[in-house]
Amino acid sequence: MDKIYRVNMTELKVREEKCPSKYAALGGRGLTSTIVNDEIPATCHPLGAHNKLILAPGLLSGTSAACSGRMSFGGKSPLTGTIKESNVGGIASQKLAKNNVKAIIIEGIPKDDKFYILEVTKDGVKILPAGDLAGLGTYELNKKLWDKYGKVGVICIGVAGEERMCNAGISVNDPEGGPGRYAGRGGLGAVMGSKKIKAIIVDDKGTDKVPVKDEEKFKQAAKAFSQVLLKHAVTGQALPNFGTAVLVNIVNEAGGFPTKNFRRGRFDTAANISGEKIAEVAKARGGEGKAVHVCHPGCIIRCSNIYPDKSGKALVAPLEYETVWSLGGNLEVDDLDKVAYMNRLCNDIGLDTIEAGVTLAVAAEAGLAKWGDGDSFIKLLEEVGKKTPLGRVLGQGATVTGRVFGITRVPACKGQGFPAYDPRTVKGVGVTYATSTMGGDHTAGYAVLQNILKVGGDVNPLKTEGQVDVSRTMQIATATVDCTGLCLFVAIACLDLPEGLQAIIDMINAEYGTTLKVDDIAKIGTQVMKTELEFNKKAGFTRADDRLPEFFDEEKCPPHNLTFEIKPEELDKVWANI
Amino acid sequence: MDKIYRVNMTELKVREEKCPSKYAALGGRGLTSTIVNDEIPATCHPLGAHNKLILAPGLLSGTSAACSGRMSFGGKSPLTGTIKESNVGGIASQKLAKNNVKAIIIEGIPKDDKFYILEVTKDGVKILPAGDLAGLGTYELNKKLWDKYGKVGVICIGVAGEERMCNAGISVNDPEGGPGRYAGRGGLGAVMGSKKIKAIIVDDKGTDKVPVKDEEKFKQAAKAFSQVLLKHAVTGQALPNFGTAVLVNIVNEAGGFPTKNFRRGRFDTAANISGEKIAEVAKARGGEGKAVHVCHPGCIIRCSNIYPDKSGKALVAPLEYETVWSLGGNLEVDDLDKVAYMNRLCNDIGLDTIEAGVTLAVAAEAGLAKWGDGDSFIKLLEEVGKKTPLGRVLGQGATVTGRVFGITRVPACKGQGFPAYDPRTVKGVGVTYATSTMGGDHTAGYAVLQNILKVGGDVNPLKTEGQVDVSRTMQIATATVDCTGLCLFVAIACLDLPEGLQAIIDMINAEYGTTLKVDDIAKIGTQVMKTELEFNKKAGFTRADDRLPEFFDEEKCPPHNLTFEIKPEELDKVWANI
Repeated sequence: MDKIYRVNMTELKVREEKCPSKYAALGGRGLTSTIVNDEIPATCHPLGAHNKLILAPGLLSGTSAACSGRMSFGGKSPLTGTIKESNVGGIASQKLAKNNVKAIIIEGIPKDDKFYILEVTKDGVKILPAGDLAGLGTYELNKKLWDKYGKVGVICIGVAGEERMCNAGISVNDPEGGPGRYAGRGGLGAVMGSKKIKAIIVDDKGTDKVPVKDEEKFKQAAKAFSQVLLKHAVTGQALPNFGTAVLVNIVNEAGGFPTKNFRRGRFDTAANISGEKIAEVAKARGGEGKAVHVCHPGCIIRCSNIYPDKSGKALVAPLEYETVWSLGGNLEVDDLDKVAYMNRLCNDIGLDTIEAGVTLAVAAEAGLAKWGDGDSFIKLLEEVGKKTPLGRVLGQGATVTGRVFGITRVPACKGQGFPAYDPRTVKGVGVTYATSTMGGDHTAGYAVLQNILKVGGDVNPLKTEGQVDVSRTMQIATATVDCTGLCLFVAIACLDLPEGLQAIIDMINAEYGTTLKVDDIAKIGTQVMKTELEFNKKAGFTRADDRLPEFFDEEKCPPHNLTFEIKPEELDKVWANI
Repeated sequence: MDKIYRVNMTELKVREEKCPSKYAALGGRGLTSTIVNDEIPATCHPLGAHNKLILAPGLLSGTSAACSGRMSFGGKSPLTGTIKESNVGGIASQKLAKNNVKAIIIEGIPKDDKFYILEVTKDGVKILPAGDLAGLGTYELNKKLWDKYGKVGVICIGVAGEERMCNAGISVNDPEGGPGRYAGRGGLGAVMGSKKIKAIIVDDKGTDKVPVKDEEKFKQAAKAFSQVLLKHAVTGQALPNFGTAVLVNIVNEAGGFPTKNFRRGRFDTAANISGEKIAEVAKARGGEGKAVHVCHPGCIIRCSNIYPDKSGKALVAPLEYETVWSLGGNLEVDDLDKVAYMNRLCNDIGLDTIEAGVTLAVAAEAGLAKWGDGDSFIKLLEEVGKKTPLGRVLGQGATVTGRVFGITRVPACKGQGFPAYDPRTVKGVGVTYATSTMGGDHTAGYAVLQNILKVGGDVNPLKTEGQVDVSRTMQIATATVDCTGLCLFVAIACLDLPEGLQAIIDMINAEYGTTLKVDDIAKIGTQVMKTELEFNKKAGFTRADDRLPEFFDEEKCPPHNLTFEIKPEELDKVWANI
C-alpha cells in the first residue's frame, strides 16, 4: 500500500501521490489522524471547503490476518468540532488495500450543487456524476450499485449525510451487500455529504494479493493470532454465539444499562432485547436470519447477525448491543421487532444508531414521543428521512435537540451522546466519555472490559479508584489497534492472552519488514493520542471540555444509587503527562 | 445602594444580604461580571440550576445624572457559553436604585413547573405566582401589570424566554409602558425563563432619593456633564434628531452596511429605512408617532423614537439602527412598515432583534424565505411565537439555525450573530466581534466611532493598521462606562470632549465620597475585562475561539472588495498583555 489519492472536489480532479516516507509506518487511525492534524486548519468549519475526509485501510488490511477488515475515516467532526476517527468493518477496506491504496484524501467542495460518485479501481480514482442515485436510501442505493458494478465495496451516505445532518454516518457494505456496517459516530457522513459524494465504489478486479515481505513468517503469526481469538471465551464463544448483544443481560445485571435516558441502570424487560433473544428469534424464524454472520471475509469472531422479520426476510444486519440499547432500553422499548425496524430506518437514512437513540430519548423528555412506545419513536425517525424541520433537528443529534427544545438533561460530552454504559455505574467508561479526543464514546477506551467483563484486569466499576488509569491505558491501546485494521474485539483476547499481541507485532513485521516489539504498542498509541490532542488544542478545546453533564454528579443512578463521583482534577490526570 | 437580594427559586426564598465591602465600589457590569465569576461554576449548563441571573443598576443610577438609567443583567450565556453582561435602558434601573438595591442574584430552579413574578419594593422582594400571566406576549403582559400595579418598572420575558430559546432577551419598559427596551443579546431571557420568572416588578413607592454624599459637588458635575452631551454634534444633534438609525445612510455610504446576509456592504434602497425616513414618517403620520423620545427619565440624548402605523397608533418604540439593518437591509427588505412590524413581533415574543435578523438571513440561505419579501420573513417570526419545531430552531439564533439547515455561511462568533457593520469594511469592529468576551457584538468595543464617525480618533476602516489597538481601547472604555449606569452614547461625547470624563468621575466621587481620577477609568475597565476573560478561560474558551467565520477571509465584500485581512496572530494581540 503506497498510493495516496488526493481527490479535489472543487476542481473535480484526482492526483495520485506517492506515500511520503513519514507516513510509511502509519495505517488506519494513525494515518488519518496524522493527515488531519497536518493538513486541516483546526478552526475551520467542519462542513466548509477546508475540512477533508480521509480514508485509510489499516496496516494489516487485505492480508490473511483474521479480523483485519477495518478501515478508518478521519476529519474534523461536525458533531463535536474535535478531530474524528471512525472505523468500520465491511468489505471495502480489504479491496482498498488490494488496490494498493494507503489513503484517499478528499478535499474541497464542488462549485455546483450536484452529487458525485468515486470509483476506485487498480487504475485509479474516477469522479462520476451520481445522477439519480442522489436522494436514495442506502438499501436501494446499495442494490443499484451492485446491479451495475457487481459485488464491489460500497462506501456511501444516506439522506442524512446528503443534507449535512451532523449525526450522519458513513455506511460500508457487508458480504451480502447490506448497508449495515457504519462508521457512525462523529458525523463524518455530513462531511462526505458536504463534499457532494454520495458513494465510493471500490472494485478490486484484477488486483493481486497485498504484498507481504516474509510470507512464511506472516502465515505462522496469522495462525497463532487466530488461535488466540478462538481460545478466549469472549471472542471464541460469547460473541460468536450471541453477538455483541450478549452484553444486554450482563450490563443490565451489573446495573449499568442506561434506561429511560439514563434515569436508572436496569431495565426490567431487558431480556426481551438481549443477544440470547436475538439468536432465539433468528433461529425460530429461519429464512435469511442468522445468529452468526461475518462483516468481512476472514472474520473468525463472527459477532454480526442478520435479524429476520416475521416472514424470515432479512430486516437488518447486524443488530448490535449498542443499538438495542439506544433504540431499545434507553427509550424503554422492549419490542425487538420495533427496535430492529428503527435500526433499519437509521441505516437507510444514514444515521448513527447510538446518537439517534440518545436523541430520541431527549425528544421524549421534550414530550415529542412516549417512553416505551416504539411507534412514537419510529414516527420521529421518519421525520428525519422526510427532512422536515423537526427531522433536521433530530438529525443533528442529542445536544442540538436538547438545545432546541430547552432540555438540559442531555447525556453528552463535546456534543456527542453517551453509549450504552452508565458512567455512574461503569465509572471507567465514564472517564473515557469525558476525556476521549472525540467526545462521548465507548470504543475510544473500553474500560467496560476491566470494570464488568474482568478482561485484562479487575477494576471495581462502582469505585472511583483506578478508573483514570484504566481509561488512559485503554485509550492508548485502542489507538494502536485502530492503526492495524484489526477489529477492536481482538484486544479482548490479547489482553488476557499476551501471545496475541506478539502475533500482531509479528504479522506487521512480516508484512512490512519492520522490527517492532510488543513494547512499541503503547508508543504507537501514545503518539496517536498526542496527535489528536494537539489538533483539539489548536481547535480550542481545553480540559474544561472534559466534563460530564452535571446531572451525572447530582442524580443517583439506581440500583446502585451512585453519582459519577470522579472529580474534575482526577479527570485532568488522564492526559496530564502524555 | 447597599442591599443585595438573593432569590433562591428552588426554595422560593429571598435573603437580604449586606453588600460585602469588596463589591462596594462596583456597579452595573463590573458588579454582575464579578459576581458571575465569583459564584457561577464556569462549566455549568447555562439553563441548569447552577447558573444565576444577576441584576445590578449602575453606579450613578437613580441620581440626577443625565442618561444614567441603564442597568446590567449578568450570567453565563446560553447562546455563547461565555460570560454575559447585557445592559438596557428603560425605567427599572432608577427605581431599583431608589429601593437601595445594589444587586439581585437569582439562583436555583423551581421544583414545580409554574411561573413566578418577583415584586421589588422598599420592603424587599416577594415571590408571587405568575398565574395566567405566563404565556403572554410582552405587550399584553406590560399592560396588565400596569393596570394592576400602576406605573412600575417591568422587567419581563416573552414566550421565547419562557421556552428557554437561546435568543431570548429581557425586556424593560419605557416611560409609556412599552416593552421595547431590551437587554437583548446573549440569551439571558432564557436564563430568566429557566428560573421560571415571567416578570420582575420594581415599585419605588415611598422611596427617597438615592443618597449622595456631596450634593453640591454632584450638582455641578452633573451640569457640566449635561453640557458636554448637548455640545457634541452626535449626542446633541444627530441622535436626538434621527435616532440611532441616522447611521443607515452613513454606514451604507461607507460600504459597511451588510446586505443579503453579508454579501455586500451597500443596500441600494437603504434610504427607505433610514433614520431620516423614520422621522419623516413619524411626522407625517402624527398621532402617537415621535421622532424623538426618551427611554428613561433624565435622558437628554433622546435617541429613541415611536414609530406609528398608518393610523398614527404606536407600532413600535424604538426602531433602532441595528434593527432596521437586521430585519431590513440584511434581508433586502426596504419596507419600513414591515420592518417595524417585525420589530414589534420580536419585542412581543421576546427576541433580540439583531440575532433574529441574522437568523432570518440564514433561513433565507436555506430557502425558507425570500430575500426582500418581508411577508415571508414575518411568517417565520410567527413560527417562533407559535413554538413550532421550525420556530424553536429560529429562536435558537443564527448558529443553530445554520447547523440544522446545513448552512455554513453564518456570520457569527462564539455562537452570536454579527450586528450591522461588515467586519471587512469596518475592520475595527470586526476585531471586536472576534475578541469580545461575549461573542459577535458591536457595543462591546464600538470601533465604528474611530473607523466611520471619526470620533475619538481616525482609523481608516479599510486598512488593518491600528484596528487591534482601537478595538482593545474601546472594549476597555466600554467596560468602564457599563459600570456607571450611563448610556454608552455618552462615550461619544466624552471621547472628543475630555471634560466629560472628568464630570463622570466627579459625579461618582460626589455620590460615594471616593477619590477616583480620570486615569482610573482604564483601570476599572481593564479589571472588568480581566474578570470576564478569567471566567471564559475557566469555561474552556481559548484564543482559537476568537476567529471570524472563514467566509470573511475568502469572500470579498463589495463595493470595496476587501476581505477581513486581519490575521489570527494580530487578533491574539488584543488580550495578550492584559
